[in-house]
Amino acid sequence: MDRRSFLKTTALGGGAAATTALAAPAYAQGKRTLTMVTTWPRGLAGVWDSVERVANSITEATDGQLTVEPKAAGELVGAFESFDATVSGQADMYHGADYYWVGQHPAWAYFTAVPFGMTVPEIMTWYYGQDGMALHQELGEVFGVRSYIAGQTGAQGGGWYRKEITSADDFKGLKFRMPGLGGEALSKLGASVQVLPGGEIYQALSTGALDGTEWIGPWSDEKLGLQEVCDFYYPAGFHEPGAALSVGMNLEVFNSLTPSQQKIYEIACADAHQANYAQFIANNGPALERLKSGGAQVKEFSEDVWDAFGAASIELLNGYTSDDLFKKIHESAQASLRSTSGWLSVSDSYYAQQRNRVLAAM
Amino acid sequence: MDRRSFLKTTALGGGAAATTALAAPAYAQGKRTLTMVTTWPRGLAGVWDSVERVANSITEATDGQLTVEPKAAGELVGAFESFDATVSGQADMYHGADYYWVGQHPAWAYFTAVPFGMTVPEIMTWYYGQDGMALHQELGEVFGVRSYIAGQTGAQGGGWYRKEITSADDFKGLKFRMPGLGGEALSKLGASVQVLPGGEIYQALSTGALDGTEWIGPWSDEKLGLQEVCDFYYPAGFHEPGAALSVGMNLEVFNSLTPSQQKIYEIACADAHQANYAQFIANNGPALERLKSGGAQVKEFSEDVWDAFGAASIELLNGYTSDDLFKKIHESAQASLRSTSGWLSVSDSYYAQQRNRVLAAM
Repeated sequence: MDRRSFLKTTALGGGAAATTALAAPAYAQGKRTLTMVTTWPRGLAGVWDSVERVANSITEATDGQLTVEPKAAGELVGAFESFDATVSGQADMYHGADYYWVGQHPAWAYFTAVPFGMTVPEIMTWYYGQDGMALHQELGEVFGVRSYIAGQTGAQGGGWYRKEITSADDFKGLKFRMPGLGGEALSKLGASVQVLPGGEIYQALSTGALDGTEWIGPWSDEKLGLQEVCDFYYPAGFHEPGAALSVGMNLEVFNSLTPSQQKIYEIACADAHQANYAQFIANNGPALERLKSGGAQVKEFSEDVWDAFGAASIELLNGYTSDDLFKKIHESAQASLRSTSGWLSVSDSYYAQQRNRVLAAM
Repeated sequence: MDRRSFLKTTALGGGAAATTALAAPAYAQGKRTLTMVTTWPRGLAGVWDSVERVANSITEATDGQLTVEPKAAGELVGAFESFDATVSGQADMYHGADYYWVGQHPAWAYFTAVPFGMTVPEIMTWYYGQDGMALHQELGEVFGVRSYIAGQTGAQGGGWYRKEITSADDFKGLKFRMPGLGGEALSKLGASVQVLPGGEIYQALSTGALDGTEWIGPWSDEKLGLQEVCDFYYPAGFHEPGAALSVGMNLEVFNSLTPSQQKIYEIACADAHQANYAQFIANNGPALERLKSGGAQVKEFSEDVWDAFGAASIELLNGYTSDDLFKKIHESAQASLRSTSGWLSVSDSYYAQQRNRVLAAM
């Protein structure tokens, strides 16, 4: 099926769902339970913590006037039905990665991660200091949700490989697991891109059905045991240089909240974004050291590989700009990225490089 | 006066103040106004925005049950009396840079910035993902305040110089404006360190009373007009690689809040930390470009300068470790910094470097 006609149809479907009248809320001053479906297995380290942080913050800050009840994937609806369940009012809200909804509209990708996109400081700058948050809500209004980013894995690692990657040509025919737009970009390099759920990756690598995989970062990757079936680890990857997780609330539910409850929803999500980022980074440092001690060979992709990643990513993103809203969001994000990275590279990055050099010598 | 005996005396004074019984709050379910003194002039760009963001978030999220009223420096008490006013109960809370209270205890510096310390992603990791927040509160309890970081300027620039700095020797005799521990470290390099308020810097540079100054970053520096009186700008500095601003609340006032109000206080501060960081970075990028277009010569310090900055900073910090609480906080922060920077340098930093290279060539 042609992507753009598919998108158009689906977007219209979403718009129609958004205008369906829900029963007017009659909660008034009473306590109210909000069902939050999620795209995650219960207890998934890091990710589920951000689910609980948002839910608990809203519940505690409203003194239980709003009690948020998270549901793991499959408990009420399947993971990838979370968006539709929220739009239709079957659930009040969802917690997930918004790039799961690129079939609804490709611009959702920008609120999780796009290949060759923004690092976390850059995401924060665009989202909280420029137009990112307003654009997230403009996109959400098309479908009938009120969205905030509310979790953050940090940069996802470049992944695990059974053989060393020395040039862009090594991706030709490589059986590699990478979902989403990153996978689409990688297929432009000739990779045989596969999408497997986390639980199937280890065995596929053991049997040679896969030559390599990305997952999340050292902390999460170590839990899957990827170091046991691949020798080479590339910490820096191009596909998700910062991966936000989002909460979306049915827009009529959101509009039925009091202004103070709406404010609590907003700042609880912001708090969870920052705290979840901190949690992932805090765990990645020690995990990387353990992986190195255990024998993982830590590598960097060469410049020609980065050239190929960049060309494929930009070509892919430009391919969606015939959609006006995608174009608006894309141009806002890319302009922000270039401006922010200009300052951060000469201040923070150069500082950190010099400081790390000096401390290592002490 | 010897620093450590001064600290000991002052810390005891703080402890005594904290145990002074305040009138028991009799607000019950009624609305309540909290007076927040600050260390800032009203309207100071960026900094005052974080004051208003915290105050407004608490007021809105509690539906006015708590109404926070910020006072600029001098309106109720002077800037540097904000801490004592809060501890004594004259004010309910303060917004300021906690390193202003190093005379009370040197460890307060760690909750704003220390020389050769953490970048903002590293601060977030330590504060929200490891022990930072708990240590902030442990320090606050000694004096009777409940503290959260609640604003963030990002990395402060290395500053403006009338002559180019080509080696560490160029700091010998240099009349340079830099307050706090950074200034103490710089004096170890032979600089004649001066502390002037913002409003006096421009003229001191014009007349040659100063050879250079740091202020905040391109956005704020441009407003002071520093580019008109200095030719050389160094974006990366060692003295405040991430500068948090904090809110401290009188501990008895905090304990009198309901659990939901306490939670709102916590997440409103976290939200303001992230949003304020975003605001500064969003404005620094374009300001740097304007400064360059206007003729500022943007430079990097050489490696021997960084070696000298590092040696002086670490010597300075180690000098405080005879204080047990300082030592505990120092060791926690330094261990966190080394672990986090290990991961960030091979993931985010390397990614950003390659991405920026590829995008610049497109």
